[in-house]
Amino acid sequence: MTSSDPITESLAWPRPDLLDDLDRLRRKAPLVHCITNAVVTNFTANVLLAVGASPAMVVTTEEVEEFVGIADALLINVGTITSSDAEAMLRAASAADRTNTPWVLDPVAVGVLAYRTAIVEKLAGFRPTVIRGNASEILALNGLSGGARGVDATVSSDEALPAAVELARSTKAVVALSGKVDYVTDGVDVISVEGGNEIMTKVTGTGCTLGALIAAFLPVTGSPLRAAAAASAIYASVGERAAWKAHGPGSFAVAFLDRLSTIGLQ
Amino acid sequence: MTSSDPITESLAWPRPDLLDDLDRLRRKAPLVHCITNAVVTNFTANVLLAVGASPAMVVTTEEVEEFVGIADALLINVGTITSSDAEAMLRAASAADRTNTPWVLDPVAVGVLAYRTAIVEKLAGFRPTVIRGNASEILALNGLSGGARGVDATVSSDEALPAAVELARSTKAVVALSGKVDYVTDGVDVISVEGGNEIMTKVTGTGCTLGALIAAFLPVTGSPLRAAAAASAIYASVGERAAWKAHGPGSFAVAFLDRLSTIGLQ
Amino acid sequence: MTSSDPITESLAWPRPDLLDDLDRLRRKAPLVHCITNAVVTNFTANVLLAVGASPAMVVTTEEVEEFVGIADALLINVGTITSSDAEAMLRAASAADRTNTPWVLDPVAVGVLAYRTAIVEKLAGFRPTVIRGNASEILALNGLSGGARGVDATVSSDEALPAAVELARSTKAVVALSGKVDYVTDGVDVISVEGGNEIMTKVTGTGCTLGALIAAFLPVTGSPLRAAAAASAIYASVGERAAWKAHGPGSFAVAFLDRLSTIGLQ
Repeated sequence: MTSSDPITESLAWPRPDLLDDLDRLRRKAPLVHCITNAVVTNFTANVLLAVGASPAMVVTTEEVEEFVGIADALLINVGTITSSDAEAMLRAASAADRTNTPWVLDPVAVGVLAYRTAIVEKLAGFRPTVIRGNASEILALNGLSGGARGVDATVSSDEALPAAVELARSTKAVVALSGKVDYVTDGVDVISVEGGNEIMTKVTGTGCTLGALIAAFLPVTGSPLRAAAAASAIYASVGERAAWKAHGPGSFAVAFLDRLSTIGLQ
Repeated sequence: MTSSDPITESLAWPRPDLLDDLDRLRRKAPLVHCITNAVVTNFTANVLLAVGASPAMVVTTEEVEEFVGIADALLINVGTITSSDAEAMLRAASAADRTNTPWVLDPVAVGVLAYRTAIVEKLAGFRPTVIRGNASEILALNGLSGGARGVDATVSSDEALPAAVELARSTKAVVALSGKVDYVTDGVDVISVEGGNEIMTKVTGTGCTLGALIAAFLPVTGSPLRAAAAASAIYASVGERAAWKAHGPGSFAVAFLDRLSTIGLQ
Repeated sequence: MTSSDPITESLAWPRPDLLDDLDRLRRKAPLVHCITNAVVTNFTANVLLAVGASPAMVVTTEEVEEFVGIADALLINVGTITSSDAEAMLRAASAADRTNTPWVLDPVAVGVLAYRTAIVEKLAGFRPTVIRGNASEILALNGLSGGARGVDATVSSDEALPAAVELARSTKAVVALSGKVDYVTDGVDVISVEGGNEIMTKVTGTGCTLGALIAAFLPVTGSPLRAAAAASAIYASVGERAAWKAHGPGSFAVAFLDRLSTIGLQ
């Protein structure tokens, strides 16, 4: 991190305002329209149900625009994109932009493969409310937006923070940068979230489902920055607690869903 | 429920005839051809394996007709339908109709989105053996069949029972209506099944996999009404027991598969 | 087994050379490109993460050739093949052949359905490094390659061993034949692996994910025969241990991932 990107706030569960956000989410049970990757479809639905949201995976070009009009929020994750997915994603993103439906873009592996990079660039043009990615993805996407180019899988979230701030400024999206420390920024404020556990890197979809959780918070918090920060803080806390209970990645995923369904209720 | 739809029978596990049905299923290990949604594919296969059936997900237009001729039963669930899925589903349903292969139609979100509603209407024309849905779906599908229109996500299975009876009469299918109380009807008799647990609404696919379980029972019971009722009663019992063991939706799904693999064996 | 296919070696965990293979895998964290079936996508990713590899499911025709050039190994599993999958698989296999990227072919249900049988025959032409299948699949594939025809779902791996040896000779691939006893052969040597547990047949994807594990070992062992044998031996050991902990197929899958993440580390 550079001195030009000061941490405005360091957020951690529990806090009264986070409890309020979570309580609002559970009372509203927002309908979250997910067009996500094939690896995490089931886990994403279960994460959203566990926290109290209503997931709906509607993915075909014939239906996505109609469903964006019904949903409270949209998630687009390009992890296992196919050409028919791409068409559906572009239509859904365009519909979200037109109807002011808040939406999250998760640009998995942008910058690594030419096809998805071109699709992500188009998707980013439909004004995502939040962009969520790891350091490599945020650096790559910022590069496409005219910032410094560079993709390094080993780069830390600290090192990618200036790119996240720059990307937030150029796209007007809130950027949620995942890593050992998570950062959330709207280009002005930077909120840091510590926590989570190393084991989360050994279970597929922990990043992808954080994107879904952010989408679920968008319709219930006052601001996208708040939504992304709340989701990240709750995710980190749930991950930490689940890790205590787990004997490995299998039991971690089970404990994660269990804990997510009760956090803030006891 | 109205007085014109009397409950003929109230079914609950354990009962000797249900034990017989389950035992027959385990000895036959019916091959269940599933064309189901992307969210529940894995869970559906595991539910069928746990109970003792043989799942096979064969989904491409080039193969579905050939495979319907091999399978003992077919499940079609339109949850995440795409246009290529739709073509495969129509071919499979048509083949099942021609070859008298028993099959279950799960019309997820029919009435909510125009595209799938049109496909479901065509699928219903291929004489499904059983139609399984929640109250909203049964009301919507009955509306398409000329009954009273109405879709209300908050409607109870009690309120939708007259529509279920009407739909069974007009389609000649057995209708399995899921809710706090499950109802199964062939348009004459109505069997009610109580049980299950609220937590089942927090795990994705509990309804969808009930459809698969009904399909597994179709080739081993004397009648579709019996198959749907047996599957519902076993499902409710397994759900209840699994809920005792669970600390949340993650451990519930694990306990559900464990229990399903041993119910009736001890 | 016939006397012309002597068992050269009987392999079981633990053994110092297997520990070395596993240690090398964990240090390298090979990037395994998976084009696999819809039922096991999530479980496959979690198995690869648990053992210490890096899974990536890149499946669209526009991206597979580019990604084969990046990946350390490739897995192609035709379980739920569609026509667009077929095109992607053929391009990926061809790219792997051109670039000498080691790859595993899992010909699920070859010989049962005409469409996939034709695709598998084409895929087999791109010189897979390893072919993994059950007895029926190996017999069917060997039949296509000019050996004796015959598909019998109830045939044992012992009975299919001569076909496995013949297939290895005609294709120059290592053949990994799964069953109560697993056999791995390059057409000259035959390595047998005992172990595992009956419950593995009640969880979807245990065979399919063995194919992924073999792919993960290909870039880190000296030979494909060694890679397939190491993966099979580790799989059998993990399956046995997980079965001790499990109360059914649900908790087995959880314990399997947990154990896979720690085997060899304590």
